[in-house]
Amino acid sequence: MSEEPASETPRAGLSRRGLLGLALGAGAAGVAVGAGAASAIALTRPDAASVADTHQFYGAHPAGITTDVQDHLHFAAFDVMEGASRQDLVELLQDWSYAAARMMLGLEVSATGAVGGSPEAPPADTGEALGLPASNLTITIGFGPTLFSTAEGVDRFGLASLAPGSLAALPPFLGDDLDPGHTGGDLCVQACADDPQVAVHAVRNLSRIAFGRARLRWSQLGYGRTSRTSAASKTPRNLFGFKDGTANILADDTAALDEHVWVSADDGPTWLAGGSYLVARKIAMKIETWDRVRLAEQERVTGRAKGTGAPLSGGDEFAAPDFAASGAAGLAIDPRSHVSRAHPANNGGIRMLRRGYNYVDGNTALGRLDAGLFFLGYVRSPDRFITVQRSVATDLMMEYVTTVGSGIWAVPPAPSEGSFVGAGLFS
Amino acid sequence: MSEEPASETPRAGLSRRGLLGLALGAGAAGVAVGAGAASAIALTRPDAASVADTHQFYGAHPAGITTDVQDHLHFAAFDVMEGASRQDLVELLQDWSYAAARMMLGLEVSATGAVGGSPEAPPADTGEALGLPASNLTITIGFGPTLFSTAEGVDRFGLASLAPGSLAALPPFLGDDLDPGHTGGDLCVQACADDPQVAVHAVRNLSRIAFGRARLRWSQLGYGRTSRTSAASKTPRNLFGFKDGTANILADDTAALDEHVWVSADDGPTWLAGGSYLVARKIAMKIETWDRVRLAEQERVTGRAKGTGAPLSGGDEFAAPDFAASGAAGLAIDPRSHVSRAHPANNGGIRMLRRGYNYVDGNTALGRLDAGLFFLGYVRSPDRFITVQRSVATDLMMEYVTTVGSGIWAVPPAPSEGSFVGAGLFS
Repeated sequence: MSEEPASETPRAGLSRRGLLGLALGAGAAGVAVGAGAASAIALTRPDAASVADTHQFYGAHPAGITTDVQDHLHFAAFDVMEGASRQDLVELLQDWSYAAARMMLGLEVSATGAVGGSPEAPPADTGEALGLPASNLTITIGFGPTLFSTAEGVDRFGLASLAPGSLAALPPFLGDDLDPGHTGGDLCVQACADDPQVAVHAVRNLSRIAFGRARLRWSQLGYGRTSRTSAASKTPRNLFGFKDGTANILADDTAALDEHVWVSADDGPTWLAGGSYLVARKIAMKIETWDRVRLAEQERVTGRAKGTGAPLSGGDEFAAPDFAASGAAGLAIDPRSHVSRAHPANNGGIRMLRRGYNYVDGNTALGRLDAGLFFLGYVRSPDRFITVQRSVATDLMMEYVTTVGSGIWAVPPAPSEGSFVGAGLFS
Repeated sequence: MSEEPASETPRAGLSRRGLLGLALGAGAAGVAVGAGAASAIALTRPDAASVADTHQFYGAHPAGITTDVQDHLHFAAFDVMEGASRQDLVELLQDWSYAAARMMLGLEVSATGAVGGSPEAPPADTGEALGLPASNLTITIGFGPTLFSTAEGVDRFGLASLAPGSLAALPPFLGDDLDPGHTGGDLCVQACADDPQVAVHAVRNLSRIAFGRARLRWSQLGYGRTSRTSAASKTPRNLFGFKDGTANILADDTAALDEHVWVSADDGPTWLAGGSYLVARKIAMKIETWDRVRLAEQERVTGRAKGTGAPLSGGDEFAAPDFAASGAAGLAIDPRSHVSRAHPANNGGIRMLRRGYNYVDGNTALGRLDAGLFFLGYVRSPDRFITVQRSVATDLMMEYVTTVGSGIWAVPPAPSEGSFVGAGLFS
């Protein structure tokens, strides 16, 4: 992987490494990727499939937040390697942006791809997604608190002054038992697609592109979405068997998105306006214990009916919970239930956009399923998540869950065409 | 879970525990499950969905072998618990059969299901598949060598005399580095479905039903099928980026199935006739190493072109490899290539039916993807697999893979309607 500095000025959206490696064969004119070029590029897709299942990496808000929740997730956290320079970081983000934009169009990571390069060189694309449609792939990239930190008094990448004031590792919560191997990271990549092979291909190739500059810290696969972002979708169920995401913010509710999800220009910092904060929480469920709890207790803990998802105060799934309504024994909805502790009415009106996934990582040595909810939530500011989490951290459901992984990242707005993610940090 | 022995004679396909627990609410007439009852039962499906995506648990050959390969796998190995009796084992198989037959029809594990029982009892079904279609779920159950073994001189379940003579733990192969936590097991359950939540729901509920009688030993999720069993399917790609399964036995090739897959009455033992032997191999791929290998070398190792899947001796994907053809430097196909070592022509004509899955279990502590191929192969006798495996264990691909898990199970024929899997062992 050794290479001499090239003399030509790299294009805004592509590093020297990208020019010399990934884009080999793309020609001296480079490759224009973006909304305007989408249809032309799509014509080169090997299977000539439709582009109906593609999303744009470039634009205003980042893809993968309000996008209809796809069936599969591969989430990955990366650390920039010790010794990597600010320029290495810039080039990494350029190369990632170039490859992400192409993959979201159903293309290989570069024009040469898996089989178009020299037989005497490693393929530019790993090839396992050849022939597969774009599968609604979205790639969402975030910046963790440690990216802005100083190490032994040195500002790692000259970004300390640009750090969002509120971006810091999350405080400890009741019920946390965090595994450092599933916590934190300088950068994150959320790859969502309807085909798991497409999501895995994205993370694998971004990890490969990062070689020598950043390295995979941890990753998580998920499936069976637990959230909906469109009124047309049925609410899916989590591994406790309950509908999950009934009250989620929907993609077309722009007022709610502006109030609860997108960072505004007034919020600051400037480079983050139009972006959001992503909180990831790996929540292990005590499946076997839960499965032996009586139905009435499961519903008391949740605050909703298992079958319909309706709040225990009555109505259908989408009825507003009535926390004052009476039930057979006291209040219909226990004030310590999950729906009560999580509800905006009991958290100063705070809502978040959730797009979590169920996960199953096999089983533990005790023969119990190693499974749960990989929570992904988007909020306008970290303190909003912290407020709600402090509230639910004492709810009845905590007896049946343990949070084993955690992270927070600032997700910048989508780059403009030809630029790269986070460019506003380096201008 | 304590319960007194009931005085009534259990039905052939349902244990006392099943009658008292799972089928609570089904009425004194019990529940007839099977081919004849399928349409009637399907009418009770909560979403009234079509039954086009269902398969029958009962029949001749077991489901999940020649069935069109579904998108997702949850494979689980179980050990019968110390102290469990022969009768416990019979009842477990009865209960599993009852629940499996129902789930394959898109039904909950019993008539009461997740919300139809008493609020003061744990739900009979865990509920996360409520509202989901059957998703082509198949459940395939196998018996491992240890089920027939003697422990400290005692025939564990009185089955030693019925053991297939050739059923034994696989011998060590070059390239094995087996993790006991992913190897062996008294029983196995292969659950395949087009929705991962449906496959996971099946294993989870069978594990729950096994409580006190058998316990989960290990399990594996897979996705992105690597095999095809129908000529109409495109050949999918494994995580080395190559097409995988080009030469697989197809479901409609009954002559090949009879010759290579199904145990015949002459093969013996009688209870296994019409069944098969399942070999599972968890093959970890050195992804990052492979990704840095030049294309020509990847193709030499494989013996096929990465793009088309064609053998390096020429033709298209389905052309027969010509092991004598000349190439630029010697033979076109390296005799040590995977295609050469695995080919029936070089293994006495042996073929097997494969339905492997790609897996990604996150990453290692070194930041490498913990990923590979979960190989599932069906053969008429264990020695057939052993012959081919000894051949491929010295091929060029072994530099890039390590087998970390392994198991073999005898898969009995599908039970007749109203009976249970493996009933022939206990008659």
